[in-house]
Amino acid sequence: MTKSPSSRVSIGLLHYPVYDKNRQIVTTAVTNLDIHDIARSARTYGLFSYYIITPAVEQQALTGRILSHWLEGWGASYNPKRRAALELVRLADDLHQALSVLAHDFGRPPKLVVTGAQGRPGNVGYNEMSRIVTATDDAFLLLFGTGWGMTEEIFSMADFVLEPVRGPVPYNHLSVRSAAAIILDRLFGERAGS
Amino acid sequence: MTKSPSSRVSIGLLHYPVYDKNRQIVTTAVTNLDIHDIARSARTYGLFSYYIITPAVEQQALTGRILSHWLEGWGASYNPKRRAALELVRLADDLHQALSVLAHDFGRPPKLVVTGAQGRPGNVGYNEMSRIVTATDDAFLLLFGTGWGMTEEIFSMADFVLEPVRGPVPYNHLSVRSAAAIILDRLFGERAGS
Repeated sequence: MTKSPSSRVSIGLLHYPVYDKNRQIVTTAVTNLDIHDIARSARTYGLFSYYIITPAVEQQALTGRILSHWLEGWGASYNPKRRAALELVRLADDLHQALSVLAHDFGRPPKLVVTGAQGRPGNVGYNEMSRIVTATDDAFLLLFGTGWGMTEEIFSMADFVLEPVRGPVPYNHLSVRSAAAIILDRLFGERAGS
Repeated sequence: MTKSPSSRVSIGLLHYPVYDKNRQIVTTAVTNLDIHDIARSARTYGLFSYYIITPAVEQQALTGRILSHWLEGWGASYNPKRRAALELVRLADDLHQALSVLAHDFGRPPKLVVTGAQGRPGNVGYNEMSRIVTATDDAFLLLFGTGWGMTEEIFSMADFVLEPVRGPVPYNHLSVRSAAAIILDRLFGERAGS
């Protein structure tokens, strides 16, 4: 069986550096449902891993406790499907660490694909991105921000910046959980790349 | 400006009758993030309304308190975009009530479109469903279950049962928030119906 191109793709959820409502750079809190929902989406679309990226030691400890419950604790036997999803989760102190562990896993640096709710010059469309992933043997890290979005420093590191998700009306304020699900479906769902 | 076909579509989240893990029929709890995430997706895709369906009076009261906070309370001025999403939310005691209020709004009964994670004979695909919505002036209620899925009674009421969302691997255990986001994107996103 041929492996899906998505098996070379990881997803990352960045908790620092991101903007708050007043455009201050902050570390956001890890939320339980971000862990679960995005892990389930990552597993459904056949991804390699899911990085929770935060420098906050207490947030890493909280995430570790949630993971142990479902991977080793009572939750593992109660809900094995939840376990299969959460097995994809890894912790990283910062984006560089996530990229360098992936570089080690794949033997070369992954390409960084950044997402955001605002359009930018040079945005890459979903069909094109899907074809790029399929056409190479590279690894990719698909990065999502929390809070009010990622800083310019992060965008400047990107190899690709995906175009925003748009519906039929001007409003686009999806939760990061919903945006991640939609983007994985556009890139790796049944109709991807067509 | 032509209205999007999605402006005749509502989404419903059913908390009874649904199965629990042991296939007993139960009423599930309303969760805060189901309200927020699905409301934001519904607004992004231009939907008419979003029904939280539960017969449990205390769950309706809880939902009402969450809505008041964001629609009238401190939250309304703190985050007007959150408010714009939650304005779509309505409460119903059961599916019949949601359908009959929509019938009153549109002057005729809405078509019921049911979603589920399991394939069934006669499933309708996303492109076909998108074309059906566009080709008529009917209203539609797109129904999602909670817990371990909706009962057969609900499926037997459906005018259409959508095919399950599938990724490139056999695992498909998306959260209802993620499934709703993906399905709205497939039906009403930029590539819908193509």
